[in-house]
Amino acid sequence: MRALISVSDKTGVVEFADGLKRLGWDIIATGGTMKLLRDAGLEVINISDVTGFPEICDGRVKTLHPKVHGGLLARRDLPSHLEALRENGIEFIDMVCVNLYPFRQTIAKEGVSMEDAIENIDIGGPSMLRSAAKNYRDVTVVCDPQDYGRVLDEIRAGGNTRSETRLMLSAKAFTHTAQYDACIATYLREKAGLPEKLFLDFDIVQPLRYGENPHQQARFYRGAEPVPFSLAFARQLNGKELSYNNIQDANAALNIVREFDAPFCVGLKHMNPCGAAVGRDIAQAWSKAYEADKVSIYGGIVAVNREVDAATALAMKPVFLEIIIAPSFSKEALEILTKKKNLRLLEVDMRRTGVRERQLVSVNGGLLVQDLDTETCTVTAEMAVTKRRPEAALLADMDFAWRIVKHVKSNAIVVVKDGCTAGIGAGQMNRVGSAEIALREAREKGLTEGLVLASDGFLPFDDTVTLAAGYGVSAIVQPGGSIHDEDSVVKADELGIAMVFTGERHFKH
Amino acid sequence: MRALISVSDKTGVVEFADGLKRLGWDIIATGGTMKLLRDAGLEVINISDVTGFPEICDGRVKTLHPKVHGGLLARRDLPSHLEALRENGIEFIDMVCVNLYPFRQTIAKEGVSMEDAIENIDIGGPSMLRSAAKNYRDVTVVCDPQDYGRVLDEIRAGGNTRSETRLMLSAKAFTHTAQYDACIATYLREKAGLPEKLFLDFDIVQPLRYGENPHQQARFYRGAEPVPFSLAFARQLNGKELSYNNIQDANAALNIVREFDAPFCVGLKHMNPCGAAVGRDIAQAWSKAYEADKVSIYGGIVAVNREVDAATALAMKPVFLEIIIAPSFSKEALEILTKKKNLRLLEVDMRRTGVRERQLVSVNGGLLVQDLDTETCTVTAEMAVTKRRPEAALLADMDFAWRIVKHVKSNAIVVVKDGCTAGIGAGQMNRVGSAEIALREAREKGLTEGLVLASDGFLPFDDTVTLAAGYGVSAIVQPGGSIHDEDSVVKADELGIAMVFTGERHFKH
Repeated sequence: MRALISVSDKTGVVEFADGLKRLGWDIIATGGTMKLLRDAGLEVINISDVTGFPEICDGRVKTLHPKVHGGLLARRDLPSHLEALRENGIEFIDMVCVNLYPFRQTIAKEGVSMEDAIENIDIGGPSMLRSAAKNYRDVTVVCDPQDYGRVLDEIRAGGNTRSETRLMLSAKAFTHTAQYDACIATYLREKAGLPEKLFLDFDIVQPLRYGENPHQQARFYRGAEPVPFSLAFARQLNGKELSYNNIQDANAALNIVREFDAPFCVGLKHMNPCGAAVGRDIAQAWSKAYEADKVSIYGGIVAVNREVDAATALAMKPVFLEIIIAPSFSKEALEILTKKKNLRLLEVDMRRTGVRERQLVSVNGGLLVQDLDTETCTVTAEMAVTKRRPEAALLADMDFAWRIVKHVKSNAIVVVKDGCTAGIGAGQMNRVGSAEIALREAREKGLTEGLVLASDGFLPFDDTVTLAAGYGVSAIVQPGGSIHDEDSVVKADELGIAMVFTGERHFKH
Repeated sequence: MRALISVSDKTGVVEFADGLKRLGWDIIATGGTMKLLRDAGLEVINISDVTGFPEICDGRVKTLHPKVHGGLLARRDLPSHLEALRENGIEFIDMVCVNLYPFRQTIAKEGVSMEDAIENIDIGGPSMLRSAAKNYRDVTVVCDPQDYGRVLDEIRAGGNTRSETRLMLSAKAFTHTAQYDACIATYLREKAGLPEKLFLDFDIVQPLRYGENPHQQARFYRGAEPVPFSLAFARQLNGKELSYNNIQDANAALNIVREFDAPFCVGLKHMNPCGAAVGRDIAQAWSKAYEADKVSIYGGIVAVNREVDAATALAMKPVFLEIIIAPSFSKEALEILTKKKNLRLLEVDMRRTGVRERQLVSVNGGLLVQDLDTETCTVTAEMAVTKRRPEAALLADMDFAWRIVKHVKSNAIVVVKDGCTAGIGAGQMNRVGSAEIALREAREKGLTEGLVLASDGFLPFDDTVTLAAGYGVSAIVQPGGSIHDEDSVVKADELGIAMVFTGERHFKH
């Protein structure tokens, strides 16, 4: 048996080749791989001795030869194929072990020229992978060092790899070449000024029981690279499988948590926050957020940005929640919460990275891609457009309200008091309508003074300012930008309200 | 100059080869392509005469030879490469014209065995495409018959293709191989029982000015295949470029239009319908939908399912709309509406197909994929769960209400009278809240009897039934399925309301 080895990622390749040798295989290799194996004391056949052809054109044409591809592609079960090999002096090659230097890394190198990039496009490697993969019934193709152990074990046990394994390895090889060429195509299309083509690939996390509704089939995938604040890379410690709607809701909760550095807790239902608060510790943040709306949180999702400790777990336990999300759970907290068999507990990486994230949403026959709305300005007194400048205590609530309103479905109004939501108005077609819902909620809680109101879009008229004043609002934060901005400012001045313009809109639909 | 031709799609290849011959090129070909060209009277060199190697293994190893790949890959500017070619008797190949039989079509054939599928994986073709594409500085690679004309024109004009063209063709070739291998990988992964990998690719329609908010960059893409009810394949007849929010809203409008066969019109704002109606013709449907909410439609989107005629255009013209969507516009209607320079007019294919469509939405680091919610049951008297069965007139309104409530953000309640929305309650965290909004809207219009109410999710208690009766609701359509269903039924019977259970939920977040 003969194996042809030519790898870019040399992890474990010496041990693998050595293992094959010990099992009686001959090793054919090229260039750098050959040198590495020979330096390790292994006897290796030079590819040129197989082809009888020199390595010409700086190695561009090494393996593109019938002695290689005939040896890979010939069907061992067809006498005519065997006869052709014999006549042409071609011997079987029974394994190809090849992996490709990631083109993405080539072009990511600083100062890489287009010439360098092109020179790095591998031609021989993908051809060998594809020939071997096509003939998987007789040939083993290995493109991932993680498979070396399994391949050696199977040969050791049964004389050759198992046919199911060869099929699996074939599928992996075509995956490797597809991703490789997608990356090259993306690069060259840009250089050539061709219309962009967006290549995406995702790995299945799990098929879901159903989608948004029971008659819709659904599946959950993840991207190649782990990112923080991601459910796709979360660790589930307890409870049933997540549903489609759970995943959407939990993702919305994570994007809210991402806004805060101080200990923070948010309750979420149907894609909207129902209560949110900062606290001196996570137990207090939970207690405030829970008190903010004890009804809506029933059957909802809670996310926090600190470890859930025993005190917080004990306080949460009596409430019916679907999911609790945290960067971690203390041992005691886990003991307390896992008593509830169905309660889903999720550990999610909440470390901040500077990675720009994309948001995808399909429309019929198409796809919209945008930057995720992760930017938020800090609300400062300098943003004030009214005579009254917000005092420090109000400013903190304004910044808090601003970071929450961003995550409420438009048109959104949030009313805040003491680092805690007092009222949330979501999804109305008309901004005053949302304000009424939020302000009424605050009044029902007995909160009637020193309130802060935030709006995700500009206030088109002075009606919301007037309404807000009647409910005890002292400060308003809004993007500004209406042609009637002046009306709102004049009205705020008249009513003694502090108002800031952030210059930043945060619609969310 | 020599061109190597080996095509699956034979469109225009004879004319192309003939054109090259007339420009003094030699043609090398393989198998079926060679026969076709020779039958057309063209002199063609057999690939075997170039390689000096027979076609072995049923053609599996035809072109995988240094005489082919050396001829493609050698850099014409490097003396060492030229010397190597001379020493090894290799001549330049200056063009590769190859396209691959779509693997998707292979596996879509009825009764295709896995063996057939594997046999159809092309090895030689992709290798030639990739070698030629890598060496685009000297070699022209043509994988799309649409490029034949341009290639011939350039050679005729300048002796060879232009270098920008060769780069562009190289990018197309890698696109072709990437898509080909993605398709094979998907097929083999499934056969091998490997975890699914979802490969997607989209073509740019246009970069957008910005995303949901001005600080978010965004782009709009489309899939490979045109589908009906799609903006990605719409024809824009007038007005400015669509914005990100326009596209989301317009897509929502199209999915509502898709529900109706009778002449129908919907007005939409912020992802929710604000008025919708059926009519004996489209002018009447518009008039009813407009009257249903003259305020919210301001700056909104209107979609209809019939040609916009002059009468409808005249009625629409005075209203400030952002977008009108229709299957077509009559000549007179266009003349009337294009007077408004900014008004976007979109012609969208509204023919029904049975194609199952997918909806994608990303979450941080992942992707949710589900069937688009295109199924809707027809509401019938047999679905009644109350003593009173809905009469024909009510039934029509119930079916109408059911098809609208599906497209309102959850929790959704829609109130209908005479084939027209009377009130729409959207996005409340609590179902009675949405019902209050919808019912109040109907009453404000003076509609106080014979109303129909639809709910996208089940009514958990009898509170909504009681509330509805007070506002003049005669019939209710809801999914059913609450453990308290019986309470609602008893209450409806008590109040003389007809109620049906559809057994189908339609959440939309």
